[in-house]
Parts: sequence; structure tokens; C-alpha cells
Amino acid sequence: MTRSLSILGATGSIGASTLDLIRRERGAWRVVALTANGNAADLARLAREFAAEVAVVADEASLPALRAALAGSGIAAAGGASALVEAASRPVDLTVAAIVGCAGLAPTMAAIEQGRTVALANKEALVSAGAVMTAAVERHGTTLLPMDSEHNAIFQCLAAGDLAHVRAITLTASGGPFRDWSAEQLAAATPQQAIKHPNWAMGAKISVDSATMFNKGLELIEAHHLFPVGLEKLRIVVHPQSVVHSMVEYRDGSTLAQLGPSDMRVPIASCLAWPSRMDTPCAPLDLAALGELTFRAPDEARFPATRLCRQAAEAGGAVPAVLNAANEVAVAAFLAGQIGFTRIAVTVEELLARYAPAAAATLGDVIAVDAEARSRMRQMMELV
Amino acid sequence: MTRSLSILGATGSIGASTLDLIRRERGAWRVVALTANGNAADLARLAREFAAEVAVVADEASLPALRAALAGSGIAAAGGASALVEAASRPVDLTVAAIVGCAGLAPTMAAIEQGRTVALANKEALVSAGAVMTAAVERHGTTLLPMDSEHNAIFQCLAAGDLAHVRAITLTASGGPFRDWSAEQLAAATPQQAIKHPNWAMGAKISVDSATMFNKGLELIEAHHLFPVGLEKLRIVVHPQSVVHSMVEYRDGSTLAQLGPSDMRVPIASCLAWPSRMDTPCAPLDLAALGELTFRAPDEARFPATRLCRQAAEAGGAVPAVLNAANEVAVAAFLAGQIGFTRIAVTVEELLARYAPAAAATLGDVIAVDAEARSRMRQMMELV
Repeated sequence: MTRSLSILGATGSIGASTLDLIRRERGAWRVVALTANGNAADLARLAREFAAEVAVVADEASLPALRAALAGSGIAAAGGASALVEAASRPVDLTVAAIVGCAGLAPTMAAIEQGRTVALANKEALVSAGAVMTAAVERHGTTLLPMDSEHNAIFQCLAAGDLAHVRAITLTASGGPFRDWSAEQLAAATPQQAIKHPNWAMGAKISVDSATMFNKGLELIEAHHLFPVGLEKLRIVVHPQSVVHSMVEYRDGSTLAQLGPSDMRVPIASCLAWPSRMDTPCAPLDLAALGELTFRAPDEARFPATRLCRQAAEAGGAVPAVLNAANEVAVAAFLAGQIGFTRIAVTVEELLARYAPAAAATLGDVIAVDAEARSRMRQMMELV
Repeated sequence: MTRSLSILGATGSIGASTLDLIRRERGAWRVVALTANGNAADLARLAREFAAEVAVVADEASLPALRAALAGSGIAAAGGASALVEAASRPVDLTVAAIVGCAGLAPTMAAIEQGRTVALANKEALVSAGAVMTAAVERHGTTLLPMDSEHNAIFQCLAAGDLAHVRAITLTASGGPFRDWSAEQLAAATPQQAIKHPNWAMGAKISVDSATMFNKGLELIEAHHLFPVGLEKLRIVVHPQSVVHSMVEYRDGSTLAQLGPSDMRVPIASCLAWPSRMDTPCAPLDLAALGELTFRAPDEARFPATRLCRQAAEAGGAVPAVLNAANEVAVAAFLAGQIGFTRIAVTVEELLARYAPAAAATLGDVIAVDAEARSRMRQMMELV
């Protein structure tokens, strides 16, 4: 029996890993929509390979190139924000929502509104629009599968019990490249140093988030929406080897953990095959060869990001959206050499103190808060 | 809603831990039968406390003392092997089968034949009588819950997937007190040194089994019957901290592990509350405080027991029963100062080479093979 699938964000790294797995069970899947931001050439190549029904570029300027590249293929080409939402609305068994940033919110919501299954890799959907998205998931009876390695780990561990019996959920954090750096060293850290992640190959923005621990803080906010056990039961532990992806402790003292290689194809395969399992080419876990797994408490003096994120989640409403937007602007400024590494968290905290918008009731509200927060952050940092 | 429960082996350590948990939710349970070997005083005290219907001593000589201790309580007292089987046959929602040794086989079988739920802590049921017991479980539609910490860990990890999707099951082993000893040191090891287990408080026999790694080998045989994925998928890894109790790796590269304190109340609570969860007073897991978990491959040159057990499981039939009986005799001889530590595995291997009985079709066959193996082992060791 074939299942139908759309991938929102097909040319990114999640899209590539997803299609790598789909390629291995080609006969099991029918690909409906593939979307990209502006990379028409790659998108057209993938759409042809997987015989997609429709290919969509978010950037309308790329549409002519997409049309040309798909000429004679019989595959529909479209461009722009509303075409993206239309593609995400086409009925499929499974949508992989992997568009980066706020651009992913509307298509992700359209996929959720189908009431089928959405594998979620768009961080903003839960960080900035958590309440709006989870309300839609509930309203439409949608199955939401977390694709992030930590949240997917928690999701797997929850198969052994019920949320009501959870005593603690612990997100593991590699601690990033500056894990062992002193406060003085952190103040002098360069973008080149920050983007070298020890365990995962990632883009510059998320590598900096790993270095500041904002990445883990944002994951804490996501976990708060995905697994509503209460923030006081959500923990973070630094685990440099990134072998244990996260853990769930139950009331009887049993802790279930999910372990695996640092390969996104593992959580992606878990989502694609759920509630069954599929093969991946990932190497088996060899703990004897690894030798040791180490753990330590996070140091929120050197890495205040997780504290800020926890406070934002506690405040709720539009505060996490402000935090996320502020962090993006600060990271961009750091990468551009405009602010120092430790200023990222400091400026985010400053904006949170100055800008406290009303709770966002709709996706439009979230997007407006996001834009306003970015604008205020740039002004505050005198970058404009 | 109260559930009914019998405990076969109520005065042992599993019985005590089980009753400790029952005591905490007294109103949720109705205790039907409690049994002991010969400890009439303790048994009577527990039967009174938990208002059991019947108390049974396996050793008939203890029956008068039990009768006297229960006088006026309204609790029935009985003694002997057939009374034990009768008690195990009384209908209950859950039987905890925790009698040590071959004496536990017949009552455990009687509990299985109820077709309800049996929480199994009797090792011989699966090591010596695996095929006979699992056939009875299947025939009667019984739910078998493994109470041993390793097998219970695997059982919990299997909630996240299906046996058909398992790539490997890994039992963790503390490695015992002689983990880092040289072959020369092992040859000179004394009983006093062997019974100091690093992580668990246990009896002398099982402590020696932990030191030889026969304990882990016997668990491998049990796992082979409980989780029929094929012996080639069953692994052992040495993990000195005994925090990870065992692991299941699925075909997608996800490994689920169960972690917890070295406290039998955790797996017992898992069985008592299954498929739900109950509170225990066990301390939460604090990996940051533990700092590190280490793993290494077992060394079958110094510790040949796991190899012997794997070979016995591969041979099947009555061979594991011979191995188990031979090991018990050898351990008793070691504890009595009659043979050296490394002679335990050597003599077990010798008996396996000399005595290869036909497969046991019934529990009677298993018990006969067990008795014959013990007799031959004693003769072979010239201890008779």
C-alpha cells in the first residue's frame, strides 16, 4: 500500500534526508507536493525524480526558472506564499513540515488543518506559534510527529507510558563548541569558532544557537507545547557525546531514553514509518566502542539562554515569539561581526524587558509580533 | 477497583519488595495466597498484615508452626508441594512467581495455567524449562511480565516498537566484583571476595553468578525465550554503573534504553501497575550527579560463562537445564571451599560435554534432568 507525502522545504537538509529514505522505499510512497524557497533547479530535479504532482517555490521570482526546468514533465509549477499554502493543503497521508523560519508557519498550519499526520521540523511553529498550532492540532484531530532528534526521542520514550505518569522529561544538550570555555573566552568567541559544532553538521544560525544554548532553550519551549507535563518537569542535561537524544522518567523511577547516531535520518525514519519502523542505513550503536557517556548540569551563568527561554515559556503568550525573533537578529549581528558572542543573550534579554506584546491569537498576530520584534531589536541594537 | 494478587515466595527479597509496594497502596489490592519455603513466622506475620486467604509453606515440617502462628486469624494454612500448587491455582489477577530454584517450577506453571497475568522472577522457569513454560503461556493466553531488572527493561523498551523490527537486544552486565581482575587473580578468588557485589544487595549464590558472569549468561537464555528475536540479535555489554538496565535497538537505528536506580522495586512496580505506572519511593535519576556511564565489551576469555550459556541456548532442549544445575552444584562447591573460582565454568563445561539428555517435553522431564545433572556433577567433581 503506497502512502502519499508532501515535503514543505524539500531542498533543505531535512528535505534531503527525508528524500534519501523515500528513495530507498520508492514503491511505498506517492509524492504530492515538493516546495523550496528559491532553489528552482534542485527542486525541479527532485520533483522529476520523485514524480511529484506539484513543485512550488516560495520566492515568486524563481517561478520562471522552475517552469522552464519542469517543461514537458507534466509536473505543475507554482510560486509565492499562497501557492505554498495551496500545496500544503493538498490531501496527503503525511506532510513533512521543514521550512525554516516564519515563512513555514502558514503552510505548516495548512498541513495541520488537513487533520492527517504532520511531521514537524519547523521550529517556529511551536516556539513562536505554539498555542495557535497546538490548538489547531487539537481542533483538527491531527497527529503531530516531532522530527527534531530530541523531541522525537521523547515521543518514542512516551510509548512506554502516559504523560500523566511522567515525573520528568530531560532534554540532552551537547553543550556546543564552547562547552568548556571560560566567561572571558566566551566574550572573545568568533563566528568561525561558533559554527564548528562537535557532533552535528548544521547551518550557521543553528550552530550559533548550539553555542549559546539558545537551541536547547528553544527546544525546551517546543517540548513544553508538545508534551504538556508542566515546565517544572522539563530538564536539560549537558551530554557532550550526543548519543542519548533525550529521556523520560516515569513515576515509578523507570527512565526511558532514546539513543542513536547523530544522523537526522533516524528521527525522520521514525516519523515516516510511525507507528511501525523502517530500515535506515545508519550504523548500529556500539556503546562498547564509544566507551563512555558523560553528563553534567548546564551552567546558566555562562550560558543564560536556557534560563531566558524557560522564562519566556513561563510568561507564554507572544513572549517566546519575541525571544525567537530577537535571537535571530542578534545571531545575524554576531555572524556579521557587529556584536560579540555574549551580547547575543544580553540583547535578547534587553528586548524581552522592553517589548511585551499581547498574546497572539492567530497566526497573523504571531507573524506581526515576529516582524515588530525584529524591527525593535534592530533599532535597539542601533543596527538600522 | 481492587486487584487480586498472590505471591509465591513472599518471604524472599522479591516478596519483601513487592509487599513494600503493596503496603503503599493497600486499598488497591486483595492478597489471596502467600507462600514461603519454611519461614513460618515471617509468613504468618505477612499473611496477617495483608489479610491473605491462605498461607502455604513448601516444607511440610513447618506447617505446625504456621498453623500455630495463624491460630484465630481465619487464614487457612497449608504445607507441602501440592498445597503450593493448589495455592498458585487460586484465581488471581496477578501472580508474582518468585520462588527460587526448581521448587518454583510447578507452582509457576500452575499460575501460568490460570491464563491471567504472571510476573516472573523465578529464573529456572525460563532457563531450565523455557520451552515448556512459553508453550504453556501461549496455550493459556497468559500475560507474562518479566520482573528481573534487565528483562523488565527490555519489556519496557519494546513498548516503542515490535519484536519484528528489533535489530539487537543488549543486556547490560555490571561485570561483577572481579571485572578488572587478571586470570591469575581470578584463579585465587575467594568466596568472601565473590559475594561482594558492587551495585546490588544479593544472596551468595547470585553474587557468585554475577562474579562468574553466569548470571548474565542465564539472563541471556531467559531473554532468548521471552523475546524470540534469535540468539544472534542478543548481546551483552559490560556497564559497571548498572544504571542502564538493558536496551533494544530497532531497524531504523533508534535504541531505547531503560535506566534507573539499582532498586528491585522499580521493575516490580512496573509489573504491578502494568500497563499503567505507580509511584515508588525510589530516588529520581540524576545523570549529572552520576557524571559518567561506561561500557565495554565482555571478556569471554576471563569470563567464559556467557559463551557457555549462549552455546546451551543454541543447543536448546534440556542443555540449559543441565548447565543451570551444574552451575548451582559448582557454585555450592566453590562457596564450600571445595573448588577454585575459575573451576566453576570449567566443570560446568565438562558436564555439558558428558551429559546430553533428550529434550524435556514436560515439567517432570525438566525436574528429572535437573536432578540427574546435579547428581552427575557431584560425581564428576568427586564431591559425593
